[in-house]
Amino acid sequence: MKKYQDDSLTLHTDLYQINMVETYFKDGIAEKKAIFEVYFRKLPFGNGYTIFAGLERVIQYLKGFKFSGSDIDYLREEGGYDKEFLDYLANMRFTGDIRAMKEGELAFANEPLIRIEAPLAQAQIIETAILNIVNYQTLIATKAARIKQVVGEDVAFEFGTRRAQELDAAIWGTRAAYIGGFEGTSNVRASKKFGIPAVGTHAHALVQTYQDDYTAFKKYAETHKDCVFLVDTYDTLRSGVPNAIRVAKEMGDKINFVGIRLDSGDLAYLSKEARKMLDKAGYKKAKITASNDLDEYTIINLKAQGAKIDTWGIGTKLITAYDQPALGAVYKMVAIENDQGEFEDTIKISGNPEKVSTPGLKTPYRIINVASGKSEGDYIALDTENPEQEERLKMFHPVHTYISKFVTGFKAKKLHEDIFVAGELVYTIPNIEEIEMYAKENLTLLWEEYTRTLHPEEYPVDLSQKCWDKKMKKIEEVKAKVQEMID
Amino acid sequence: MKKYQDDSLTLHTDLYQINMVETYFKDGIAEKKAIFEVYFRKLPFGNGYTIFAGLERVIQYLKGFKFSGSDIDYLREEGGYDKEFLDYLANMRFTGDIRAMKEGELAFANEPLIRIEAPLAQAQIIETAILNIVNYQTLIATKAARIKQVVGEDVAFEFGTRRAQELDAAIWGTRAAYIGGFEGTSNVRASKKFGIPAVGTHAHALVQTYQDDYTAFKKYAETHKDCVFLVDTYDTLRSGVPNAIRVAKEMGDKINFVGIRLDSGDLAYLSKEARKMLDKAGYKKAKITASNDLDEYTIINLKAQGAKIDTWGIGTKLITAYDQPALGAVYKMVAIENDQGEFEDTIKISGNPEKVSTPGLKTPYRIINVASGKSEGDYIALDTENPEQEERLKMFHPVHTYISKFVTGFKAKKLHEDIFVAGELVYTIPNIEEIEMYAKENLTLLWEEYTRTLHPEEYPVDLSQKCWDKKMKKIEEVKAKVQEMID
Repeated sequence: MKKYQDDSLTLHTDLYQINMVETYFKDGIAEKKAIFEVYFRKLPFGNGYTIFAGLERVIQYLKGFKFSGSDIDYLREEGGYDKEFLDYLANMRFTGDIRAMKEGELAFANEPLIRIEAPLAQAQIIETAILNIVNYQTLIATKAARIKQVVGEDVAFEFGTRRAQELDAAIWGTRAAYIGGFEGTSNVRASKKFGIPAVGTHAHALVQTYQDDYTAFKKYAETHKDCVFLVDTYDTLRSGVPNAIRVAKEMGDKINFVGIRLDSGDLAYLSKEARKMLDKAGYKKAKITASNDLDEYTIINLKAQGAKIDTWGIGTKLITAYDQPALGAVYKMVAIENDQGEFEDTIKISGNPEKVSTPGLKTPYRIINVASGKSEGDYIALDTENPEQEERLKMFHPVHTYISKFVTGFKAKKLHEDIFVAGELVYTIPNIEEIEMYAKENLTLLWEEYTRTLHPEEYPVDLSQKCWDKKMKKIEEVKAKVQEMID
Repeated sequence: MKKYQDDSLTLHTDLYQINMVETYFKDGIAEKKAIFEVYFRKLPFGNGYTIFAGLERVIQYLKGFKFSGSDIDYLREEGGYDKEFLDYLANMRFTGDIRAMKEGELAFANEPLIRIEAPLAQAQIIETAILNIVNYQTLIATKAARIKQVVGEDVAFEFGTRRAQELDAAIWGTRAAYIGGFEGTSNVRASKKFGIPAVGTHAHALVQTYQDDYTAFKKYAETHKDCVFLVDTYDTLRSGVPNAIRVAKEMGDKINFVGIRLDSGDLAYLSKEARKMLDKAGYKKAKITASNDLDEYTIINLKAQGAKIDTWGIGTKLITAYDQPALGAVYKMVAIENDQGEFEDTIKISGNPEKVSTPGLKTPYRIINVASGKSEGDYIALDTENPEQEERLKMFHPVHTYISKFVTGFKAKKLHEDIFVAGELVYTIPNIEEIEMYAKENLTLLWEEYTRTLHPEEYPVDLSQKCWDKKMKKIEEVKAKVQEMID
């Protein structure tokens, strides 16, 4: 097969999308409007929440949505599509509406993170890239928040580029980690592109180059103000730490001896011993950074063992979301324009009850108790409802519907913002510090029973009564229709 | 912090690389040549081998290696580096030598996949991106080969884009999967860029759009020759399969009824029932495709249950290497030029014995038994040795050194190719079909004890006696030096 220039992201989609669009186009319904929702069905890592991320990249992708000349050449030559259809594709731009959560928003299972209202053809083609972006970035922001939760007041840095799943994951992953609460990254390109602080001093190679710790640290100190010495190239306690101290003493005020980094061995033991040595030498303020396959589980254990670690460098386990490397967000049609130009509900039934989609045009709200400032849960209402105006809400469990409560004295916060209206970007992307701050503030809305890393309580995400009734009605309709066709 | 244009991959590195290079530059040794090796210490997934991939992307990266104007602006404004050093960086191009395995080569733990000989400064900066690329692509090619192993003569397609870790992973991952033995991908952009077959017909959304299976399949069939109908939107056996058959009958020769796809529910049961229905209707050649969180474990189980599946669509578990989402390849300095212009060995010692690096300039060979055509193991020799010329080799276990064997009647195949010489690309990248074929042929070199997916035998990767002696000598030297500095 021939190779073509990779000059557009518009073909970053599944082939079935193009084939479906071809059917719609030939059938004259490709411009019918449809509504799709992006949501996931299960929280990752056994966590109590996720932190939504990926919107900036989705916006960039949609702004650049346009089949290139080489895309069309490829589709004609390798796909065999006809001229009329290819002309349709070549002229296609994104003209739809997008509503979405803001990056840094808390998001839970079965609520729409993004809602797409667009001509069927466009809505179909953009599905794959949107999921590709949102699944990964939301996953990493969430993993970062979990790790930051146990890191607490200590500092957490993202060090994972070399183990990331290719280049995009390294940079967008570290941006997501920053949203989730990390303080900086080792990746210089990400720092440049996103305005995230870059951190790092030297690796084992520096010590190998100079063949001993003392010379390496000394040379580094002679050429840099801020010094963190990596002490485990040959022998941490017998060579690394003593030579770090020796160089710090020799250089005195000429450097800022930030501290040392441990990257192997028993981090609990080594950090405690290194702390004693630093303290004894008068460097009580020198920090100890640790790295080496860390995650929330090892950190919680190291802390329990009294490890003297001030700064945590997290790589592989964060940037790949090692214990669950995919978030299963899906993109489901919830309504489609009928011949009268009105939206009609659609549903996907499944043998697995948790996979049945919820039809209809709807918006998620966060129900915040005015007295406590804490969230009572999320509430998904139809567009015809307005929980912001109501004084008393009945919230019930979306699976175990006999569990319900009435809520009063609340503020209903709409969780969707308008992002694109009729293809125009109407949203201003906040800067990265604002997004990180927003995520941090959002976490204070949750009782700690929802934010603990082990066995959190299940945060309620409820359908309004009308939304629930609509879903039940639609299930009955589809069942009847299937039966009718069989009979 | 300010944001800059993302117009170069050269800053896709860790900040510590830049800081080390600054020290080398100011110390006047940045142009000293150093030799680094890329290798991993442990095979992933409990597999018996890996399939090396990533070289094409590494070559592209090195060809484009050059700090952009905005890179230099960023480093000056945010990093505070001085003009002299920034000028040095701005003028830097890759001028080194790269030797590497060919893509599709079998690779094992502790052997050099890539060997870099370059000025210290360059060798340091390129480390991060090379690892980022090779770690992921080798991981996925290997995972794909494992899955293809159990898929056997059936067809395997890569369907994972929506769950991949960002965009690059989706496309380079599916290329790696193709190298590992997959037959096609759902990702159109990857198909276009790499010349891999794209596959796919329609999703649940088509059925939702037309609100019933029959109409959807019929509309699809009226607009496409090759038809695979997705049958599980509402009810697989009561609606999906019967309507697929009905449409196939109605359309007759107007379409090529390839078959059906199952995407949920009990795939073993549903495939057997669907097979019966298709056979009974006279469609004995219609294929059944299955997808839904499949991997080598579920496939082996489905086959054991007698599932009637002909084509396997593999997504999440492949594209993220779900059960082990990172390969831990590292980049270690094995020699550095001394003041006399000769290479001197370097080593990294570690509290973990398996993490001690092997010093010296060396090349890996595959020792192939001429009589059986099978490989006896890999043999890592110093550049001063030439196993291709030898008639009898002593191979011993690199950890349990008392285990050894003598090999005769062999052919020693050098596993490294010259890729760059003095910064010039001297290697022609094979096309993707050649790479896939090469991987396939390589696998026939291994006894099946090494290729089975569960508890394979450990394939021998041995150091030559001289290589081993050199390592031991270097360890003693470093120990003595550390002791000397303490005394």
